[in-house]
Amino acid sequence: MSEEKIIPYKIYLNEDEIPKQWYNVRSDMKNKPAPLLNPGTLKPMGFEDLRPVFCDELIKQELDDTTPYVDIPQEVQDFYKMYRPSPLVRAYCLEKALGTPAKIYYKFEGNNTSGSHKLNSAIVQAYYAKKQGLKGVTTETGAGQWGTALSMASAYLGIDCKVYMVKVSYEQKPFRREVMRTYGASVTPSPSMETEIGKKINAEHPGTTGSLGCAISEAVEVATKTEGYRYVLGSVLNQVLLHQTVIGLEAKAALDKYGVTPDIIIGCAGGGSNLGGLISPFMGEKLRGEKDYRIIAVEPASCPSFTRGKFAYDFCDTGMVCPLAKMYTLGSNFIPSANHAGGLRYHGMSPILSQLYHDGYLEAVTAEQTAVFESAQRFARVEGILPAPESSHAIKVAIDEALKCKETGEEKIILFGLTGTGYFDMVAYQKFNDGDMTDYIPTDEELEKSFATLPKVEEI
Amino acid sequence: MSEEKIIPYKIYLNEDEIPKQWYNVRSDMKNKPAPLLNPGTLKPMGFEDLRPVFCDELIKQELDDTTPYVDIPQEVQDFYKMYRPSPLVRAYCLEKALGTPAKIYYKFEGNNTSGSHKLNSAIVQAYYAKKQGLKGVTTETGAGQWGTALSMASAYLGIDCKVYMVKVSYEQKPFRREVMRTYGASVTPSPSMETEIGKKINAEHPGTTGSLGCAISEAVEVATKTEGYRYVLGSVLNQVLLHQTVIGLEAKAALDKYGVTPDIIIGCAGGGSNLGGLISPFMGEKLRGEKDYRIIAVEPASCPSFTRGKFAYDFCDTGMVCPLAKMYTLGSNFIPSANHAGGLRYHGMSPILSQLYHDGYLEAVTAEQTAVFESAQRFARVEGILPAPESSHAIKVAIDEALKCKETGEEKIILFGLTGTGYFDMVAYQKFNDGDMTDYIPTDEELEKSFATLPKVEEI
Repeated sequence: MSEEKIIPYKIYLNEDEIPKQWYNVRSDMKNKPAPLLNPGTLKPMGFEDLRPVFCDELIKQELDDTTPYVDIPQEVQDFYKMYRPSPLVRAYCLEKALGTPAKIYYKFEGNNTSGSHKLNSAIVQAYYAKKQGLKGVTTETGAGQWGTALSMASAYLGIDCKVYMVKVSYEQKPFRREVMRTYGASVTPSPSMETEIGKKINAEHPGTTGSLGCAISEAVEVATKTEGYRYVLGSVLNQVLLHQTVIGLEAKAALDKYGVTPDIIIGCAGGGSNLGGLISPFMGEKLRGEKDYRIIAVEPASCPSFTRGKFAYDFCDTGMVCPLAKMYTLGSNFIPSANHAGGLRYHGMSPILSQLYHDGYLEAVTAEQTAVFESAQRFARVEGILPAPESSHAIKVAIDEALKCKETGEEKIILFGLTGTGYFDMVAYQKFNDGDMTDYIPTDEELEKSFATLPKVEEI
Repeated sequence: MSEEKIIPYKIYLNEDEIPKQWYNVRSDMKNKPAPLLNPGTLKPMGFEDLRPVFCDELIKQELDDTTPYVDIPQEVQDFYKMYRPSPLVRAYCLEKALGTPAKIYYKFEGNNTSGSHKLNSAIVQAYYAKKQGLKGVTTETGAGQWGTALSMASAYLGIDCKVYMVKVSYEQKPFRREVMRTYGASVTPSPSMETEIGKKINAEHPGTTGSLGCAISEAVEVATKTEGYRYVLGSVLNQVLLHQTVIGLEAKAALDKYGVTPDIIIGCAGGGSNLGGLISPFMGEKLRGEKDYRIIAVEPASCPSFTRGKFAYDFCDTGMVCPLAKMYTLGSNFIPSANHAGGLRYHGMSPILSQLYHDGYLEAVTAEQTAVFESAQRFARVEGILPAPESSHAIKVAIDEALKCKETGEEKIILFGLTGTGYFDMVAYQKFNDGDMTDYIPTDEELEKSFATLPKVEEI
């Protein structure tokens, strides 16, 4: 028997152990995620169809569902060294506070200025844009983490970055906006009067405070109409999940060092990039029948794509200018209620995760906002990290599972993704601290109304 | 010749290499810092005199200027593991951007929720308060980093925490306030109507937005009048500098691992805790004549204690209820002009650093705000970390020194302290981004007026 190693509070890999390749989970999926469809013709989109919107190299990654490992460019590896490897934390203090026999680990992606895992893909997309000789990139941002990440990556590489920020966030989160500006990005409240779609939405909905779907439409329009620009997206797409596998690969390498195998893996799910990235290498083993893991996606009860959505082709944006994706969706017209986890308010879900969920490889649960903030506060007080509301969905379910272990006496090993910090979410924390937080669950009628707008697409 | 090791972007010590003892630099000082004086009798304060204000164990540390090493309690060591060791970063990207042959390192203390090094002492002071069986602690906070740190430490240990927050910060930094509340602290804007000194100041200066000196007076009053409470201070005191030596000890251990000896060590200086902590082990070698280092304190031009202050006994607070300390001071009535580096606005300076400066062991320079933010932005764009305005003073001078090396071709090794992150300083960044930032330097007349209020104390 080998001697058990003492597990430190934080497991850091060495810099030379940062992954040099991403893992493409699609290569191990029997049922591949369905292709993107042209919103005009409803035909599957190939390389040439996607070129006006995305960078060439990223399209290749988007379409490639067979290559198991993809090399990480050296320049991206260098950038990763600025803030990676991220720590895998053993939550000793949380375990003690809960009095659970469970062993809890979390992969903490918040220790960079973007405040989240988003930087992992932002640098890659900005890199390929620069390599293709482009002047800049456009994107949308809701809560602001993705916009911040892309601003940072663009500043580092010296390319331009135009961010369309959902108007309500632009006004309510001026600090996020200023971080992006400090990194040299231009930040425009969406819907703006700079684009055709923005003008149209402003005319149809005077005084609207915008939505993520609408901001996407604007950013895509600007990218396709401006010489030397392409659009980049922070979640949902296959390419983004590919880049985010750096999270799971590091987490697995750190656990493997200590001979630890998780029983349960938990992540919050908005568009799916963090969850997909975290679980991919574990999912690969599960798909190949080598190991079994319980994998749980946690979504807000106010925006329940997995648990109450339909698995269907839908538009990725409100303006219906983007490709259609087959995914769990609440309908591209679904307007999530006031919910502070801005990063989890997307109507759809990554096609990869949608297919895996459809095929029974992962579970999904919902959590209500107040309970999520209770868990966030509990976690903050013992683990010292103030978590983002999005990440706190995963914390909530990790605590629930650990408390089940307390009842049964099982020493289960729980791994969850702590995607980011909540420093720019203090308005939400204040509501919670003041006892003014409310919960909201959409009614069946609301969802049915939204489902009615789903496009009619013949299955291929 | 031994082979040169490749230095990674971030040098992390192992958890078992976190210091187990603090280093007391006073033990190596020939001229000890002068004792604190009783504000009533102007006599040196002994153990019994200080007991109404401070915890017993902390008073011992405050008074002990001979013991070279002090054990770090196991419980504090455990807490340190939650966020330490902090990384020592090789600023490869900054070096490249500057085109300098200098080698730049920075010790980054911002990767915890308090956003700064303040947590290093907060946990110690809260720990000794708990050990002494106290119910809680009181303190003041300006920018909010210290208050946040103490809230976190108190929440972890389960003791009460009352924070008096300078009113202008309380109103302009609601997010900081909410972080403290999330950690269970009570936060009161100062001057309040809850204390005698608060009522007095409010009566004399209606509509005042408060000052750090005033908030200190209130916190001390509450601590001395409330059963089971003591006051704790986040900087200036000998004990705080002792706790903060964990920064310098880790930095030195990390450099020693790679055989690197810095030529220049730079830190920002407000009350002196970060600078004192960073330089102590290096200063020890310098004091013992073993090595020589150039050590530079950077202070804001708007609050130039070292460079334009007097080395004299002065009150630590506006209310004149605290002990007097012999230090470089601008006068306890000095009101620094609008300057966003809230953590550097204190009128005085650590007695230890004051003595060392007086004896010629360190240099001091000033930096103006706009130039500091220019350096902050430059740093953020290439190193990925959004620095606090306070820390950016050190960045400014590190960049200046690196650019001098570019001119001379010297490959100097520069180490600076990056004390914290600027996530809660976006109002200041916005001013900078908008081109609305102004600089201010007090006139000689203003300083003379302030010096006139210095207490008359016969030297001992």
